[in-house]
Amino acid sequence: MSEGRSKAVVLLSGGLDSVTTLAIAREQGFDCHTVSFDYGQRHTAELSASMDIARAMGSAEHRIMRLGLGALGGSALTDDSIDVPDQPGEGIPVTYVPARNTIFLSMALGYAEVIGSFDIFVGVNAVDYSGYPDCRPEYIAAFENMANLATRAAVEGTGRYTIHAPLIQWSKAEIIRRGIELGVDYGQTVSCYQADHHGRACGRCDACRFRAQGFREAGVPDPTRYQDGVTPP
Amino acid sequence: MSEGRSKAVVLLSGGLDSVTTLAIAREQGFDCHTVSFDYGQRHTAELSASMDIARAMGSAEHRIMRLGLGALGGSALTDDSIDVPDQPGEGIPVTYVPARNTIFLSMALGYAEVIGSFDIFVGVNAVDYSGYPDCRPEYIAAFENMANLATRAAVEGTGRYTIHAPLIQWSKAEIIRRGIELGVDYGQTVSCYQADHHGRACGRCDACRFRAQGFREAGVPDPTRYQDGVTPP
Repeated sequence: MSEGRSKAVVLLSGGLDSVTTLAIAREQGFDCHTVSFDYGQRHTAELSASMDIARAMGSAEHRIMRLGLGALGGSALTDDSIDVPDQPGEGIPVTYVPARNTIFLSMALGYAEVIGSFDIFVGVNAVDYSGYPDCRPEYIAAFENMANLATRAAVEGTGRYTIHAPLIQWSKAEIIRRGIELGVDYGQTVSCYQADHHGRACGRCDACRFRAQGFREAGVPDPTRYQDGVTPP
Repeated sequence: MSEGRSKAVVLLSGGLDSVTTLAIAREQGFDCHTVSFDYGQRHTAELSASMDIARAMGSAEHRIMRLGLGALGGSALTDDSIDVPDQPGEGIPVTYVPARNTIFLSMALGYAEVIGSFDIFVGVNAVDYSGYPDCRPEYIAAFENMANLATRAAVEGTGRYTIHAPLIQWSKAEIIRRGIELGVDYGQTVSCYQADHHGRACGRCDACRFRAQGFREAGVPDPTRYQDGVTPP
C-alpha cells in the first residue's frame, strides 16, 4: 500500500488543526506515520480521538509516546492548580505549555530518523494562537535548521529534513474549508482544553471559541459535541 | 542558600562528562538544578549514580524525567536486539540514539522556562565522540538559536537562553584534569554503555575505552569499578 511513497511523520493531537494537517499530508502523496503524546494533559479524550482518526484516515502506523511533562508544571493544561480561563487574556495564555512544540517536534524527529522519513508535518497556526511563541514561522524555520544539524543524515549527507506547517498562516475558517474539501470528518475531532471523557467540549475556553467562530465564518455546520447544558459559544 | 544566584539547568547522566559539567556550572556561581532521563536505556545504574552525585554536589533540585524513547528503537542503547559493539566501527556508532540530545535539551528548555532559568549546561563533547551529529558546536549553536524563538521570553523580551557546552572541544584527559581540580569524585560516575546494576563497567565498549584512555593520559589513577574478571582496557 505504501509502495514507493515517501514517509512522513505527522503530529496528531486529535484536534481540528492536526487532523486537517494529516489530510493535507495524505493528499500530497505521503505515507503518513502519526504520533500522539500522552503528556499529562487534563483530558485523554483527544488521545482516543487521535487513535480513531489515525485509523479512519489510513495512517500507516500510529504511536502514542509518553512524556513526563506534568512534572514540569507551569501550564493550565498540565497543572491542576492552574485554571483554564473562560475569557481570553492579554499576552501568552496560561494554557501555553513550556517548550511543548519543541519537545513534540524533537520526538517526531527521532521517530522520522528511525523510520527513514525526511518530512515532518505539524498543525501549528500563528493566526488564532499568535500568543504562543512556538507557533510562529520563524520558530519553525529555526527548528528545521537545527534538525538538519542534529541528525545522522546531516553528517552522512543522505537527506534534508523539512518541517511542514501548512496551516501556519491560515484562519480557522480557511482550515475548516480545506479540510472539508479533503473529506475530513470534524465530528471526530476534539479541540476543547477541558473536554470530558466522552470528548464533549466545554464551550467556554479559547479553543472552543476559536473553533466555533471558525465554523461560523466557514459557513459550515458545526459538528462539535458539547457537554450537557452548554450553549455553543 | 541560592539567594541571589542565577539558576542553571544541568543535564546530568551520571557519567564523567556530565558530572564535570555540573562542577563547572557550580564553580561559575550558578544555583544548579539537575535533570536525568529515564529513556529505556539498558542499565539504570547511571540513574542511581546521577541521584547520588546530585546530592553530593549540592544540586538545588534533581528531577528524573521519563521518556518513551525505547518505543523509537534504532539504537543499541535502547533496543535489546542491537548489540553494543566491542570494537569501534566506521562512521556514526550504533550506540547513537536518534535525536537524543535534541529531545533532552528540549525537555531541559521546558524545565528552564518553568523555573526561570536562562542557562542550560550540557556535557557534550565533539572530540572523542565525533561520530555523533548532535555533539558538534554548530548543532549546539542552532539549538540555542531555536530556543530563543521557541519560548515565552522570546516573545516578551525578558531574557536570552544560553546553551553552555563547556567540554565540547576538550579531550577526555582535559575533562578529567579539570574535574579533579574542581573536586569531582569520578569513583561515583558511570560511563559504561552496559554497566551492571551495581554500576560496574564492562571494560569493552567505546565509552569504557575512551574513559580508561582519558585517565591514563591525564596521569590520574582510574577509580572505575569493573565487573568481575574484566581486564581494564
